[in-house]
Amino acid sequence: MKDVREELGRSLDRFRSELFEFLRIPSVSARSEHDADTRRAGSWVVERLRSAGLDAELLETGGHPVALGEWRGAGPDAPTLLVYGHYDVQPAEPLELWTSPPFEPVVRDGRIYARGAADDKGQLFLHLAALEILLATRGSLPVNVVVLAEGEEEVGSPSLLPFVERWKERLGADAVVISDSAMFAEGLPSLLFSLRGLAYAEIRVQGARSDLHSGAYGGAVPNPAMTLARILATLHDESGRITLPGFYDDVVEWDEETRAGVAVLPFDDEDFRAGTGAPALSGESGFGTLERLWMRPTCEVNGLLSGYTGEGAKTVLPARAMAKVSFRLVPDQDPARVIDQLRMHVARVAPGDVIVEVVELHGGRPWRARPEGVFFEAARDALEEAFGVAPVLTGEGGSIPIVTEFERILGAKAILLGFALPGANMHAPDEWFPDAHLEKGIETLLAFYSRLDRPDRVVRPA
Amino acid sequence: MKDVREELGRSLDRFRSELFEFLRIPSVSARSEHDADTRRAGSWVVERLRSAGLDAELLETGGHPVALGEWRGAGPDAPTLLVYGHYDVQPAEPLELWTSPPFEPVVRDGRIYARGAADDKGQLFLHLAALEILLATRGSLPVNVVVLAEGEEEVGSPSLLPFVERWKERLGADAVVISDSAMFAEGLPSLLFSLRGLAYAEIRVQGARSDLHSGAYGGAVPNPAMTLARILATLHDESGRITLPGFYDDVVEWDEETRAGVAVLPFDDEDFRAGTGAPALSGESGFGTLERLWMRPTCEVNGLLSGYTGEGAKTVLPARAMAKVSFRLVPDQDPARVIDQLRMHVARVAPGDVIVEVVELHGGRPWRARPEGVFFEAARDALEEAFGVAPVLTGEGGSIPIVTEFERILGAKAILLGFALPGANMHAPDEWFPDAHLEKGIETLLAFYSRLDRPDRVVRPA
Repeated sequence: MKDVREELGRSLDRFRSELFEFLRIPSVSARSEHDADTRRAGSWVVERLRSAGLDAELLETGGHPVALGEWRGAGPDAPTLLVYGHYDVQPAEPLELWTSPPFEPVVRDGRIYARGAADDKGQLFLHLAALEILLATRGSLPVNVVVLAEGEEEVGSPSLLPFVERWKERLGADAVVISDSAMFAEGLPSLLFSLRGLAYAEIRVQGARSDLHSGAYGGAVPNPAMTLARILATLHDESGRITLPGFYDDVVEWDEETRAGVAVLPFDDEDFRAGTGAPALSGESGFGTLERLWMRPTCEVNGLLSGYTGEGAKTVLPARAMAKVSFRLVPDQDPARVIDQLRMHVARVAPGDVIVEVVELHGGRPWRARPEGVFFEAARDALEEAFGVAPVLTGEGGSIPIVTEFERILGAKAILLGFALPGANMHAPDEWFPDAHLEKGIETLLAFYSRLDRPDRVVRPA
Repeated sequence: MKDVREELGRSLDRFRSELFEFLRIPSVSARSEHDADTRRAGSWVVERLRSAGLDAELLETGGHPVALGEWRGAGPDAPTLLVYGHYDVQPAEPLELWTSPPFEPVVRDGRIYARGAADDKGQLFLHLAALEILLATRGSLPVNVVVLAEGEEEVGSPSLLPFVERWKERLGADAVVISDSAMFAEGLPSLLFSLRGLAYAEIRVQGARSDLHSGAYGGAVPNPAMTLARILATLHDESGRITLPGFYDDVVEWDEETRAGVAVLPFDDEDFRAGTGAPALSGESGFGTLERLWMRPTCEVNGLLSGYTGEGAKTVLPARAMAKVSFRLVPDQDPARVIDQLRMHVARVAPGDVIVEVVELHGGRPWRARPEGVFFEAARDALEEAFGVAPVLTGEGGSIPIVTEFERILGAKAILLGFALPGANMHAPDEWFPDAHLEKGIETLLAFYSRLDRPDRVVRPA
């Protein structure tokens, strides 16, 4: 490890500059006006893969392209590792809540602030840097490596599944490593045992053809904003349980060991609450905060819009009202089934004086880890080596929909190895990544590959 | 009447051009970026008053100025008429729903389309034109006339009440005529027996300090948009009645004659519904559509905003949610009391995991007419003369908060004489005023003044 560590020390400042270059590209996949930027971020990854020593190309999809890198020097009999990440980012709005502009990365108080710093450009970059060091220093890797960086993760990866199906042989791997999540706490690395899934929809309510005067028409013409509020109010019962019939049918009963592991994690509700600034925590009765975040499904309103929302008082009776509503799912819930349940529920509770539509926006399945095997052990030991403490097993409330699909299509075991920290504002203003983890993360990955570099340990899983 | 009618015929095209000039000024009082435009519209009214032959000036207030015109030629013993209107307009958004730009008036299919065409520039202009014709043709008016055009009606007239109190002596009048409403139907003129009042507030809910990732925090951190929906859903019961304790305490029981007069008005629910485009009508059980619009109070959501409302799916747990909520009030409800009732209700139903605030935006008292007296009769007869059919007595669902204040402070009986037509889109895109009513409206006002021009009839009310 000495040779690669020294190389890391020499290259760290350059790596930071390169990451900043990557973060400056506003690759907001959800916005068509950023299509060119998004492609540019994909090309940037291809160039980095090539300069690291991999064969790389930008492959077209129906949407944003995939940056694919390959190093097959370990030979056809060696195992193959797939590294997955994404080069697209969430929209940055509301811009006025950012302390510094979202696409002008800066280091402030030991944190790299920028949209994508944690999710996922910063973490994808760790892999690119580690591969560059290993190939530059040693000329080879202990396993074949395929790097797949997509540009549509933040819009539900619509092209990725067809892409993986199409390139199934080329992407074939024994394990897939993904760095797109957070450690449990500063100084306490973690490996994931689960991810929540997602079912995201828009509920649209239409009353009159166009906005009306609330005096001239109010009282006799339906108010879609009021109706929408009533529909949303039916989605939970008083104990915080979601009311869609059948919603909990597929929710896993977690085993005692997993629940006990979660129960002993160092976690303070009051610290967590204070970090959010909310007056109190809340959620489904009968569960602790970590269970609510990792092991229980949710139903959230992500956005509301109707009528007049500007300054002052406009007496309008709105024609339309819209809510973005999403469900976080746990094993073994199915997003398509949940959207169907939402549709049926909304149709049942909606009155006949308005038109109500449920539009599915995207979905992804939840995931459960199998915490065993050569790659998992290498990851665990590498984290312990780099951070000086054994990683804990944690859940993740967020979703990486492709994880279950990689396992299903490629037969690769997923390992979720995240380097962000809690409170990273991944989908919010002031997203950040700890500057020190640029080094620690690359160091972990160098240790990970070093641990795979023992012929006696590298056995292709059955 | 022949002389003034001929003058009207000669001047009509010029009047239309002048009105268009007025309509081109984007005097949106609610938006500070239009402050200069709003003042310009006030100055425009002053100039028109002067060219009509009145003494006029722009008087400062704490907000937008008042355009005041005076003609005292009838002498101190003659009655005085106060004409009230407003030169400010509603915001024009959403702009994309206008067929032609809101501040570029055009005549299309016999309608003048522009923001303010009906509410209230077009109707205020009728008075300016009628006064000009009478003074140009006859050199005098049968009564003293004061014209008061304010620039804050669309933001709740915050400066008008202090203004009227301050200039109480100067504004002293026997009657106040207001043209800011609609006729009951095309070809069927009407005089108002009531106006609804208004209590307008914003409900603001705050959860976390800033927007959070709905995966990383969802399920344990309160969702203010969901809470807001639940609060709004408590505002009505299943029969459409408003649930605020005490809300109906001051609601008048209308006399049999008024209810019977409303019951026989030619009104077709299905035509009304079709005009709005809503799938069905709705409202408080036990009341007909006109009763719901004129004689019963309402509670409406005028606007909703929370979280992410753009294209695509952003998985945000919003920090804030906002609803604009307004109540239309009927005699003898008090807006301040209703806002208090809302505050108490919201405080009772809001959970402790969020901060909920009710901010009063504006209010106005409801009004009931006393349909009698010289001025009222002159108005009734003038409408019959101009339109060839006797006016009906109707209610108005909208609010003109200053009406009760004029009566209270100045002792002037209010006469509400509207020339717009139903469906005029007063607070919505494609606002319009019937082009033919430019002539009919001025003709009515000419007949109104002619009828006051009989010394035997003009007696100062006791």
